[in-house]
Amino acid sequence: MNFLEERIVKDGIVKEGNVLKVDSFLNHQMDIQLFDQMGAEFKKRFEGKKINKILTIEASGIGIACVVAMHFNVPVVFAKKSKSINIEGDTYVAEVESFTHKCKNQVLVSKKFLGEDDHVLIIDDFLANGCALQGLISIVNMAGGTVEGIGIAVEKGFQVGGQIIRNLGYQLESLAIVDSMDPSNGTIQFREQ
Amino acid sequence: MNFLEERIVKDGIVKEGNVLKVDSFLNHQMDIQLFDQMGAEFKKRFEGKKINKILTIEASGIGIACVVAMHFNVPVVFAKKSKSINIEGDTYVAEVESFTHKCKNQVLVSKKFLGEDDHVLIIDDFLANGCALQGLISIVNMAGGTVEGIGIAVEKGFQVGGQIIRNLGYQLESLAIVDSMDPSNGTIQFREQ
Repeated sequence: MNFLEERIVKDGIVKEGNVLKVDSFLNHQMDIQLFDQMGAEFKKRFEGKKINKILTIEASGIGIACVVAMHFNVPVVFAKKSKSINIEGDTYVAEVESFTHKCKNQVLVSKKFLGEDDHVLIIDDFLANGCALQGLISIVNMAGGTVEGIGIAVEKGFQVGGQIIRNLGYQLESLAIVDSMDPSNGTIQFREQ
Repeated sequence: MNFLEERIVKDGIVKEGNVLKVDSFLNHQMDIQLFDQMGAEFKKRFEGKKINKILTIEASGIGIACVVAMHFNVPVVFAKKSKSINIEGDTYVAEVESFTHKCKNQVLVSKKFLGEDDHVLIIDDFLANGCALQGLISIVNMAGGTVEGIGIAVEKGFQVGGQIIRNLGYQLESLAIVDSMDPSNGTIQFREQ
């Protein structure tokens, strides 16, 4: 097990309905030293890639993205999840429809902050059905930029999101891929990487 | 002028209605090296304070808080702005009513992540009327914790938020305090600190 898998086993909580709670260290309370380790690991996994910007999505992606960005020495742009009065002028908008939930979500980025010269590393905390991620990729493509890679903390390997993205040929690096969880005894099966 | 004031003069945009746009480096695209400088400055200003946790609020506070946290070597907790299905169980809820807008907002933190042993530094990107900040202070008090200080990137000194907090006796450190702005020529007057 790597450092993140070990932490998930130690502090993650498996709940009914394939819910994995990691809010004590990843997405409500945030362990910044753990994020720093994740940054070092992503830097290694995306070595040789020409990355000049990190893109993430509010809210829980932002913390990881900012600490990871210190390892890449690049700025972070975060996408907003719905129309906000704080974003003026031209925005890239991706309309993403969830296939597990019934809702549509909008993902927005101001056109000022993504362009054809951008080589983008996408960072997020979770990957499950992949809707938010599809929206982020779509926005980089609208901007004429290049998705150099995608770094995820925790992927739910039993949902389709990760497979779709790998099928499309993107370098997707998930630090922990959960293949199954058992709420009756709290055990978690990770995919060998 | 300090490093942040200089950056605001260089890249901030003054708009009608006392709007200051800093979205190219602070709250949509984020300059992580600038955040790192801010972290070093806050570390200096809060020297000697026993701080074991940073509290911020989604979304744009999170990035600054996480980079600042690397200087304090403490975890970050971010408050959510409205009832979320992802927060289960017991939460601290502060109902804050804006006196410039007419809306009420809820600020929520899970009770698991704040308690009476916590010595909290509150970090946010902007301080104007101070409603969000009042909610965060209220939540630390509900938890029985101690607000050791408040670190803000940009304070609008011509709005009441900062004065109220200083009147209450808190150590509030704003790296840039804007006393006035002129949209006709883009000039910004900073308060001498």
